[in-house]
Amino acid sequence: MSNKKLHFGIIGAGRIGRVHAETLAFRLPESQIVTITDVNREAAQSLAAHCGIPKIAESSEEVIADPQVEAVLICSPTDTHTDLIVEAAKAGKHIFCEKPIAQSLAKIDAALAAVKAAGVQLQIGFNRRFDANFARVRKAVASGEIGAPTLMHIISRDPGPPPISYIKVSGGMFMDMTIHDFDMARFLIGDEVEEIYTTGGVMVDPEIGKAGDIDTALIVMRFRNGVIGTIDNCRKAVYGYDQRVEILGSKGKIETGNCYPNQAVVSGEKSVYQDLPLNFFMDRYTESFAAELKSFTHAVIENQLTPVTGIDGRIPVVMALAARKSYDEHRPVRLDEVNA
Amino acid sequence: MSNKKLHFGIIGAGRIGRVHAETLAFRLPESQIVTITDVNREAAQSLAAHCGIPKIAESSEEVIADPQVEAVLICSPTDTHTDLIVEAAKAGKHIFCEKPIAQSLAKIDAALAAVKAAGVQLQIGFNRRFDANFARVRKAVASGEIGAPTLMHIISRDPGPPPISYIKVSGGMFMDMTIHDFDMARFLIGDEVEEIYTTGGVMVDPEIGKAGDIDTALIVMRFRNGVIGTIDNCRKAVYGYDQRVEILGSKGKIETGNCYPNQAVVSGEKSVYQDLPLNFFMDRYTESFAAELKSFTHAVIENQLTPVTGIDGRIPVVMALAARKSYDEHRPVRLDEVNA
Amino acid sequence: MSNKKLHFGIIGAGRIGRVHAETLAFRLPESQIVTITDVNREAAQSLAAHCGIPKIAESSEEVIADPQVEAVLICSPTDTHTDLIVEAAKAGKHIFCEKPIAQSLAKIDAALAAVKAAGVQLQIGFNRRFDANFARVRKAVASGEIGAPTLMHIISRDPGPPPISYIKVSGGMFMDMTIHDFDMARFLIGDEVEEIYTTGGVMVDPEIGKAGDIDTALIVMRFRNGVIGTIDNCRKAVYGYDQRVEILGSKGKIETGNCYPNQAVVSGEKSVYQDLPLNFFMDRYTESFAAELKSFTHAVIENQLTPVTGIDGRIPVVMALAARKSYDEHRPVRLDEVNA
Amino acid sequence: MSNKKLHFGIIGAGRIGRVHAETLAFRLPESQIVTITDVNREAAQSLAAHCGIPKIAESSEEVIADPQVEAVLICSPTDTHTDLIVEAAKAGKHIFCEKPIAQSLAKIDAALAAVKAAGVQLQIGFNRRFDANFARVRKAVASGEIGAPTLMHIISRDPGPPPISYIKVSGGMFMDMTIHDFDMARFLIGDEVEEIYTTGGVMVDPEIGKAGDIDTALIVMRFRNGVIGTIDNCRKAVYGYDQRVEILGSKGKIETGNCYPNQAVVSGEKSVYQDLPLNFFMDRYTESFAAELKSFTHAVIENQLTPVTGIDGRIPVVMALAARKSYDEHRPVRLDEVNA
Repeated sequence: MSNKKLHFGIIGAGRIGRVHAETLAFRLPESQIVTITDVNREAAQSLAAHCGIPKIAESSEEVIADPQVEAVLICSPTDTHTDLIVEAAKAGKHIFCEKPIAQSLAKIDAALAAVKAAGVQLQIGFNRRFDANFARVRKAVASGEIGAPTLMHIISRDPGPPPISYIKVSGGMFMDMTIHDFDMARFLIGDEVEEIYTTGGVMVDPEIGKAGDIDTALIVMRFRNGVIGTIDNCRKAVYGYDQRVEILGSKGKIETGNCYPNQAVVSGEKSVYQDLPLNFFMDRYTESFAAELKSFTHAVIENQLTPVTGIDGRIPVVMALAARKSYDEHRPVRLDEVNA
Repeated sequence: MSNKKLHFGIIGAGRIGRVHAETLAFRLPESQIVTITDVNREAAQSLAAHCGIPKIAESSEEVIADPQVEAVLICSPTDTHTDLIVEAAKAGKHIFCEKPIAQSLAKIDAALAAVKAAGVQLQIGFNRRFDANFARVRKAVASGEIGAPTLMHIISRDPGPPPISYIKVSGGMFMDMTIHDFDMARFLIGDEVEEIYTTGGVMVDPEIGKAGDIDTALIVMRFRNGVIGTIDNCRKAVYGYDQRVEILGSKGKIETGNCYPNQAVVSGEKSVYQDLPLNFFMDRYTESFAAELKSFTHAVIENQLTPVTGIDGRIPVVMALAARKSYDEHRPVRLDEVNA
Repeated sequence: MSNKKLHFGIIGAGRIGRVHAETLAFRLPESQIVTITDVNREAAQSLAAHCGIPKIAESSEEVIADPQVEAVLICSPTDTHTDLIVEAAKAGKHIFCEKPIAQSLAKIDAALAAVKAAGVQLQIGFNRRFDANFARVRKAVASGEIGAPTLMHIISRDPGPPPISYIKVSGGMFMDMTIHDFDMARFLIGDEVEEIYTTGGVMVDPEIGKAGDIDTALIVMRFRNGVIGTIDNCRKAVYGYDQRVEILGSKGKIETGNCYPNQAVVSGEKSVYQDLPLNFFMDRYTESFAAELKSFTHAVIENQLTPVTGIDGRIPVVMALAARKSYDEHRPVRLDEVNA
Repeated sequence: MSNKKLHFGIIGAGRIGRVHAETLAFRLPESQIVTITDVNREAAQSLAAHCGIPKIAESSEEVIADPQVEAVLICSPTDTHTDLIVEAAKAGKHIFCEKPIAQSLAKIDAALAAVKAAGVQLQIGFNRRFDANFARVRKAVASGEIGAPTLMHIISRDPGPPPISYIKVSGGMFMDMTIHDFDMARFLIGDEVEEIYTTGGVMVDPEIGKAGDIDTALIVMRFRNGVIGTIDNCRKAVYGYDQRVEILGSKGKIETGNCYPNQAVVSGEKSVYQDLPLNFFMDRYTESFAAELKSFTHAVIENQLTPVTGIDGRIPVVMALAARKSYDEHRPVRLDEVNA
């Protein structure tokens, strides 16, 4: 790689904005942060001080318009994503945008059209593709190590539910949580889902049900190539963040375990035990957050396609819509029913 | 327990008949085999010699009529089960019958009615309930160790498919293979399934499809208490017999691993590896076969209810019928649709 | 194998006598128990009733003299072993004798001489050689799977110490407990130890120290072929019976884990845990006890050398003597120093 | 913690110098690198460019004399350590020095005296104390989780031997490799070793023997508190970097496993396998290298004692000398024999 640096402007200094800013500032020599903004100006100031960001912008418009900014990192709330993508694209800036792009296919399509018209790069923040475990599983499928895949299971459970206020605007569990698993399903199998059946319910907290969402779901996916897969989602697992996958193929299977804070096992008087798995997604996926920004930066600098494109951001939204429709109508739903 | 011995007559000297005869002869001091029969007389003779069985009967009628016989062990083909149950019941003999009782609910109901009328004991050969792994899972659920259960997954894959000739008469995968998993589902959760959704296909061998069956399936079950469960079935897993279960509850989860011929792990130049799991169901479930006969023998001697009753034999057949209907009609099917 | 049965006389109806009697009676069709004796006649009667043994002998002499007896199983206390071996050998009977043969090399040599003179078979009860884990390790060494061995570690810890009364007559930890590990060391590496260094102490119970023994030891062995090995012994491990081995070779390593009552893992609110390992040596080594008697029976019937000969019983005693001398003199001790 | 930054001067831009420079530059906001030097000026320049280090010094003297430098990071060859420590101490600079301090106790004592006289802080680079696995083990011992410790085993094997040229000047395996394990032993048990017995040999490469060293060793340590421990060292493990520890206590045991690049397990047609453990010490101990510099930086800024002091650097050298003497003289050696 050349010694070229990619100059970033960051929109959003919240939790995920902080993770990305730290990666760019402290772990990615080929990147440089030029400016940052947040509706909460203090948050932007604090993060700027921590990461040595020279400018604080008054608005996202100012970030996008900054002539030093080559790439925009969108870490603001979901409902702002597509407008910001369109603006950034029009300004000729490359874009890294957190998932999901939007909950509306029309908005997504408009944003992708703007990106295409501008000829800029776009990467969606599906960080799990860059996790060592899931990358190893993908490699096993892609290389034929386990033969032709037939059955896939994704377990994806959070340590605890988000606030009810978040659930009310997030688009629901399929849109805010399963969206990652829908991406994983496509990524791991390397093919598209054509039908989804969903069952589930409110088993964790009745308040979630009152907010119109469910907290536990079982999603069955049928891929075009015949593979059958499931996603097991729960908003709460008392033992911590549970993120596993298993794929059966004609020549074997591959399964991943959780990640633990250490590899120590204690044999005590009552049981043989180890510490609970990593509990927080930012601890569990630390390396993948860094790796996704590295891949984006390299793709832009070397003028190659980003590894998670706009269409990769769109399809999981279609899947989330199908999953919800299946749940509501209590029947299998084909993706083309919701992808008009 | 008293020193009383239970005297058995065995009908069927095939593979499972041999397993049971060896248990009674060599491992269960409180049992004694009086007589045995098989349509293949040589098989009966050979097994009698091996196990020290004093008499070889000409027919199942002779076994049932033998005044020394207190309990009949039915290990003959499935289509003979209900007739033999009825005859044995009428003769006042206790009955241990291999699964499934029958593929027809009408026949099953007639058999169960005969058993009830005669007041004899009946146990169905769902041996997995007596396996140490599954018993430990049941204990975790029943004792509240993992709280209220919410999600359950059963993985049940055979090392290789049975002969096509067997598939043609077995009633299909749901009836000959999943039947065990349906029993497991009820046993582990301790509640009844009310709806089933099935998807699957022919992924192992096209000949299985030509015989009217499928070889790979994913079954979603909804229990009355709200638990959602899946069964993952495949007729072929190249790495061996794969039998696992996982249950998530409000206070934790429990998962079982496969059983291995040894606990040795080799770190070589290319990987860290261990030998394949036990490949043959009779090796994997050796102890459970012995334990189920022990439990039957004790139940009869002590005049207590057997741990796997006739109704426990009937319900998995209903579930198998629902699973097939769901697969054929591509929709969720309630059990009461097939349990008229 | 032919249909010939080997006819046994059993001397000793204690704990290990019972295990062997049950194996012969219920699991080994090619064996038959003719008679049994014990200084405690009631113990002999009870075991005879349980296993269907037709005769109860008044004395070991009567067992050995019984013309129906082809092989004698010696399960009496250690101090009776060599006299019984000599008598049985003179009577032309094959012999299976529990370990250790004796604590005195002179007695052992006299017994082995009698066996040789009589031309009968002798097998010593080192059952662990027949355990699936240790057999797998031996296979990895013998087959070259891990290359030339260099370092070996044996962990061998009991759940709790035996009674002090036993310790006073057992010959001490090296003779009653480590003796199995000395056998393992020779068996696994397939070569002889030439020097031993021992350190250790009384860490479990001061009463053991008062009885002249230690309860915790670390033994370093140097083999003729250059391999270095350790044995870690402790009379008490609160978590259960701990029996593991690890061997490093030029092409890899092999390590074994403990055996558990089930393969279930629970993820709870405080830890991820499983049940304690099998706690009792008879549960842990059940299969190996059956397998050693099977191998003896087959060796005698087929007139082949037994897999654990008299010399295999003698060498671990030499090792135990060297280990104690090293501990007492606080220096490495060559085996030829104690093997005059 | 305050916002104060600690200003570093780095001596040595080799492999470990690079690791530390990257930590200071990219991961430790509270540190700043002022200047760097290396006898290979190009190496210093390249690392300065990579990490944004503003000055390149002509010599170590220049680094130490630099008025902006508050702390000196000594990453130069071992034979330069004590002179540099003395110079830095005289200049009033805090010191982080790689292990071992020196091979000569006289030189070490002179250096520690200079540090004491100057009242500066000194930390030795025993990074493994900061590893999550070993920290967890220490916690289990210190907290009483496993009761009073009795037996300890350290396995420490390298993927492959260093160049013969390095072995000739390193002071030998005990000084360059086991030194870390000696530190671990003291750290984990929290007490001092009083006697060492060593055996070993040349099993990996005869050239190592010709250079006067051995490549495989087994070291037995007896602690003042009665604990017995072993260290298993080998210069070559074909399966990768093998770093484990096990401690038995009166209330349980704790053992650590190796670290793997991912948690994926493949069940194939011949075995169940996973990828080899992390092979390179810098991958295995990445986080611990960062954590040790963080702890040093915080200790200096907050004026607290560093967690690995000069005496912690001295004692493992004494242990290495005793281990060699024991190997040479083929007997247990007390530490006070070499610590005149």
